[in-house]
Amino acid sequence: MLTPKEQIKIICKGVHQCVNQEELLVKLKKSYDKKEPLTIKLGLDPSAPDIHLGHAVVLRKIRQMQELGHQAVIIIGDFTGKIGDPTGKSKGRIALTDEKVKENAHTYCEQIFKILDKEKTIVRFNSDWLAKLTFEDIIKLAATSTVARMLEREDFKNRYKNSVPIGLHEFLYPLMQAYDSVEVKADIELGGTDQTFNILMGRTLQKAMGVEQQIALFMPILEGIDGVEKMSKSLGNYIGISEPAEIMFKKVMEVPDNLIMKYFELATDEHPNEIDKVQEELSNGTNPRDIKFRLAKVITSLYHTEDELQKAISYYEMAFSKKAIPHDIPILLLEDEKDILRDIISKLIEMDYVKSKSEFIRLIKQGGIQINGEKIEEDELNRVLINEDVIKIGKKKFIKINK
Amino acid sequence: MLTPKEQIKIICKGVHQCVNQEELLVKLKKSYDKKEPLTIKLGLDPSAPDIHLGHAVVLRKIRQMQELGHQAVIIIGDFTGKIGDPTGKSKGRIALTDEKVKENAHTYCEQIFKILDKEKTIVRFNSDWLAKLTFEDIIKLAATSTVARMLEREDFKNRYKNSVPIGLHEFLYPLMQAYDSVEVKADIELGGTDQTFNILMGRTLQKAMGVEQQIALFMPILEGIDGVEKMSKSLGNYIGISEPAEIMFKKVMEVPDNLIMKYFELATDEHPNEIDKVQEELSNGTNPRDIKFRLAKVITSLYHTEDELQKAISYYEMAFSKKAIPHDIPILLLEDEKDILRDIISKLIEMDYVKSKSEFIRLIKQGGIQINGEKIEEDELNRVLINEDVIKIGKKKFIKINK
Repeated sequence: MLTPKEQIKIICKGVHQCVNQEELLVKLKKSYDKKEPLTIKLGLDPSAPDIHLGHAVVLRKIRQMQELGHQAVIIIGDFTGKIGDPTGKSKGRIALTDEKVKENAHTYCEQIFKILDKEKTIVRFNSDWLAKLTFEDIIKLAATSTVARMLEREDFKNRYKNSVPIGLHEFLYPLMQAYDSVEVKADIELGGTDQTFNILMGRTLQKAMGVEQQIALFMPILEGIDGVEKMSKSLGNYIGISEPAEIMFKKVMEVPDNLIMKYFELATDEHPNEIDKVQEELSNGTNPRDIKFRLAKVITSLYHTEDELQKAISYYEMAFSKKAIPHDIPILLLEDEKDILRDIISKLIEMDYVKSKSEFIRLIKQGGIQINGEKIEEDELNRVLINEDVIKIGKKKFIKINK
Repeated sequence: MLTPKEQIKIICKGVHQCVNQEELLVKLKKSYDKKEPLTIKLGLDPSAPDIHLGHAVVLRKIRQMQELGHQAVIIIGDFTGKIGDPTGKSKGRIALTDEKVKENAHTYCEQIFKILDKEKTIVRFNSDWLAKLTFEDIIKLAATSTVARMLEREDFKNRYKNSVPIGLHEFLYPLMQAYDSVEVKADIELGGTDQTFNILMGRTLQKAMGVEQQIALFMPILEGIDGVEKMSKSLGNYIGISEPAEIMFKKVMEVPDNLIMKYFELATDEHPNEIDKVQEELSNGTNPRDIKFRLAKVITSLYHTEDELQKAISYYEMAFSKKAIPHDIPILLLEDEKDILRDIISKLIEMDYVKSKSEFIRLIKQGGIQINGEKIEEDELNRVLINEDVIKIGKKKFIKINK
């Protein structure tokens, strides 16, 4: 086991803020002396079970701590998930059934164990304790905070200022997350910098309830591939860790150049020396595209086999890279779900992509027709086309299916 | 049974505000047609069980409605009473034991039935339902209101503006009172005008929870005998309905002249015509003191027998009125709880109140010694003296016992 000082160096690397390091050192020393692992808490919202590289920033940090010997506790926030938003105003807070929550939790676990060490992870559902609280408990919980304190939270502050209603129950949600920390006796809680308020509330509540205060580790926020907003599923700017290698690779290639370094730092396990080299190359005028290609390889290989990676690379090179796929591929809109390859030949003729059906068949025989980077054989004329299929005709012509 | 229109006239008389009369008329009609009484709700705080004329304003209005055939539900707010203020900052909200709550509730009932009709009153404890609410219930409850709405309440608004902390749990209290209305399906809730926010919250919550909305009847606030602040025990400006006739009478005589009419209107059952006459007399220059004397008689007789009233009058006349008792009666401090009248004769001689024991005995025989306005017989020399006893010796000398 590494010494507390060695551990703290690793733990705080890449962290945006640690509240606070002195207390963390004390905890690490106690853990080291007693040979007892620290409890690392992460809360997850079961309404959106797709884990992307944004979540992975936090998960990789937990993984590092697991490698140092510590214990992760993943809390599935099923309690709020099951209640939803009683006002019906928040679209993200539609009440989920028990079954849906379980299903989402299962999906979560499948994904997080691509990063976390299963042996050092406990998964808990917060309805286990929150559902049991009485009104008296809740009053005591609520009494640990003030209205003014809640209105300091950025989103609440802005809504109050702009007269956008804040439901009274919304003030209870941060307390729930905080109470989770009390319940699992969290030593460390991680989150993005947008979780500052909620995670610090955990510290406050632990103190009020006589539990040792957790350390808050705030990780930087990873922007999505639009380069502007925080990566999130609802904005469509995300790279899901369960996405097929081809899609993952292609999405990384879409990351804006100015984020290459941030992605290297937050979304890979590359050694700092290696990352320094990348920075140097970028400064020396190496084509960012080549460096991004390396980034895409590194990230894809974290979640896929070498074989999948290789296929993704050749697909990418075929479809988008060397042969310079134009950004604005013409779209072919198909109205019938069952349309097969053979059905679109007449349309391709109309659109002047091929001269005749026989030319199309000849092209197939010569290996000149590809779907999603794979050559098509003649016996695949009955293949059902699906949305987003990219068909390449000859050397330069592309068409994308839209159903 | 009176017709709805006749009833509404009586119900709304003397009421500061009714929200709202149209709905009240609908309820009264339904009640009249179905021969079902309306449910009149009043919530009482069990931490201060002394009922005074301020409460009586509301209770007398309920009594009127009972006489119209309706049903009162008195809710003892024992739930908050038992919790107290978890922050320990509110002195009025110290957690009460179950026993203390029961004891206070008993004291309450003894007092309220001096005004209310026991046969048409149900007493309920709100812990019966509030203690059973789950976190999920409470979130749904909280979701019916907003932070902005809560901050509209005068006291919250001022505290927020002046940066005086508002505990988050304090936002839950108005919801509890409102939930009581849902639970008992209140048709009408009464309170002082200072209860406007909380009682209207009951209407909002009933609507949100699919229960017919209650009518809010706001009664005017009765100032205490200081003539400035709302009557309240903690300010010491109150007239308790269980106070001895002597004290009640004397306290009414202390009411400032400018409140005589308000006391007649709010604290008595006098007929409006009678009250008009009083107003006329006051305007015509009748000595306010004489009118107040009548007020004191009317109020005292509401809570005491004719005999008690007469004693109170003679005591008052003896001690404070005709024979001009000085405000600074000398105090005679007795250290022994058992001291009797005979024991103090030597002290009275020392203090030069009488010349000798035989003079004292002679005075008794002549009817010249009084205790609290009553002449003493010779066989009462063994009477134990108690705190605050006023002894009158001869025509002008007074002494007050302090034990």
